[in-house]
Amino acid sequence: MTPLPPGSTIGILGDGQLGRMLALAAARLGFDAVVLSPDADGPASRVAARSWVADYTDPAALEELARAADVVTYEFENVPVAAVERLEALGATVLPGRRALAVAQDRVAEKTFMREHGLETVDFAPVDDSLSLAAALERIALPALLKTRREGYDGKGQVWIELAEAAEAAWAEIGGGPAILEARAPFVRELSVIAARGRDGSVAIYPAGENRHEGGILRETTAPARSAPELEARRIAETVLSRLGYVGVIGVELFELADGRLLVNEIAPRVHNTGHWTQDACQVDQFEQHVRAVAGWPLGPTQPHSAALMQNLIGEDAERWAELAADPSARLHLYAKREPRAGRKMGHVNRLQPRAAP
Amino acid sequence: MTPLPPGSTIGILGDGQLGRMLALAAARLGFDAVVLSPDADGPASRVAARSWVADYTDPAALEELARAADVVTYEFENVPVAAVERLEALGATVLPGRRALAVAQDRVAEKTFMREHGLETVDFAPVDDSLSLAAALERIALPALLKTRREGYDGKGQVWIELAEAAEAAWAEIGGGPAILEARAPFVRELSVIAARGRDGSVAIYPAGENRHEGGILRETTAPARSAPELEARRIAETVLSRLGYVGVIGVELFELADGRLLVNEIAPRVHNTGHWTQDACQVDQFEQHVRAVAGWPLGPTQPHSAALMQNLIGEDAERWAELAADPSARLHLYAKREPRAGRKMGHVNRLQPRAAP
Repeated sequence: MTPLPPGSTIGILGDGQLGRMLALAAARLGFDAVVLSPDADGPASRVAARSWVADYTDPAALEELARAADVVTYEFENVPVAAVERLEALGATVLPGRRALAVAQDRVAEKTFMREHGLETVDFAPVDDSLSLAAALERIALPALLKTRREGYDGKGQVWIELAEAAEAAWAEIGGGPAILEARAPFVRELSVIAARGRDGSVAIYPAGENRHEGGILRETTAPARSAPELEARRIAETVLSRLGYVGVIGVELFELADGRLLVNEIAPRVHNTGHWTQDACQVDQFEQHVRAVAGWPLGPTQPHSAALMQNLIGEDAERWAELAADPSARLHLYAKREPRAGRKMGHVNRLQPRAAP
Repeated sequence: MTPLPPGSTIGILGDGQLGRMLALAAARLGFDAVVLSPDADGPASRVAARSWVADYTDPAALEELARAADVVTYEFENVPVAAVERLEALGATVLPGRRALAVAQDRVAEKTFMREHGLETVDFAPVDDSLSLAAALERIALPALLKTRREGYDGKGQVWIELAEAAEAAWAEIGGGPAILEARAPFVRELSVIAARGRDGSVAIYPAGENRHEGGILRETTAPARSAPELEARRIAETVLSRLGYVGVIGVELFELADGRLLVNEIAPRVHNTGHWTQDACQVDQFEQHVRAVAGWPLGPTQPHSAALMQNLIGEDAERWAELAADPSARLHLYAKREPRAGRKMGHVNRLQPRAAP
């Protein structure tokens, strides 16, 4: 595969902060970015050379995108597979591609994929109706987590079941559609690995980060995570990337158990919030890495020059911008979202330490 | 002065690579960038939220820019002062402002300003006609450099005079307009200082870089420069910034003499090619620093985490992009200019060394 020359155009599905940071990284390498999203005036389109406001499956918009872009990627995993199929039918290259989307969009397919390839997950059972819900409750010890099979992010679309009697109500609460019951993972900490695979099959993996969530939303990542099982984390990331025939950056969320084993929690077929620390601690960050991968460029180095703490600015956290701007230890990244809302990611801060943790 | 809140709009006069990198830095901090330039489809406008293609003095375009932007800045020093005056009359804040432009646009005014404030320059004499040319030749020893008083960059608009008899022809060669005759500086190396002054008068200065030019065009900057007279360089930058009442990033080019003295060669009232090394070697680079300054934000830290070598990619140098993309020690920055031309700056590469030079 010949790498895309500078001056080429990277198409992005989605107009959020991840698209914005992808577009900025593309621009640094001499690419133009163009954005398709149903939302007008989002963070990405305001740094793009061109944008279309249309449904992801809008035929006319997809046609224009396919014509304008030399490669198309996406900033979130809930892009309709139909949009990708349409783009491919129009001759466009879409990366990471349909396979990764299909696996990541369905929690049952995702966990089944992991197990088929020898990777551990929590116990789980599909829930499609009252019968399968009852069967799931027989197999999975309570408390257990009931989630929608599709959609849902930042803790939305999921609920804990403590007692079997409450299961039907819990299922109704998340919509009563296709769901998955997941056993509670007895984890000691949450790790994640940001990894990339190039169009030539080469792989580049950043050191694992340690994540702290609150209310289902990521609050902080510390990277490199102290005493992380790096070899095992790398093996998992490499397995996922190669078995998916993946191209681009992926986020792999892991549970570390007391005995050191790692379970795969979920994958995100895109740049990932737990990889934002790379922006200020690595020479090539996850955004440039993703652009390099989908453009067919060689992957960049992943060894951090510093250790970092990444802190999300959620909702009103971002009102502290003036204080953070005055803090010489805080590298501030703001997303230019028009409306702050509770629970909405508005920006993040990276704080460097002088040397990478051992 | 209240700092501009995220979501505000930074107006940029000029659509080149400096404007592009300013717009990218503004975007990271949650600002929108808008661009006014007579050139269509330049590097900056393709990462801006909005742009106008019009003469810098076009009244309608200036009116729209003044309305859209919360502060206006410029990426090059040859913006017509009339455009700045018009913007100010429309109520816009333009930074670094008219004073800096007026001094930087006229080589005689520039050197006169330096001397008035106790800073050394090469000997010089204004040339306006044959009479003043003859007077200049009496005062300034040959070989001497004849330059246009205004305009001219990257070695354009200047010619060496070796013999007095060739002076009239040399003057005709650079257009026969207002000019300056400059004595040859017996320098041992060329240094530059990138410095910033905030709207509150605070100052932040990066370590000096050592520059190598070829044919009047910057080829390389090594920073921090080894054994540079940092205190004296800082004193010069501070004097220039405070005496101009400057707000923003400035580039101050210096000649270091054999006895260690520093002469001011020229100033650039904007982000500067010799400051590109800060992008990969500092936590806050010159572009973010400039945005911080003009937005009324506190200035960021200037201590590099690494030493760096910056190499410009000029004309066909940029055809080596694939080789440079594969070099893990090269951080590649490309400007997405549509047409490569001989002598045109197409991008640059930063190469880091693990620790700052002493």
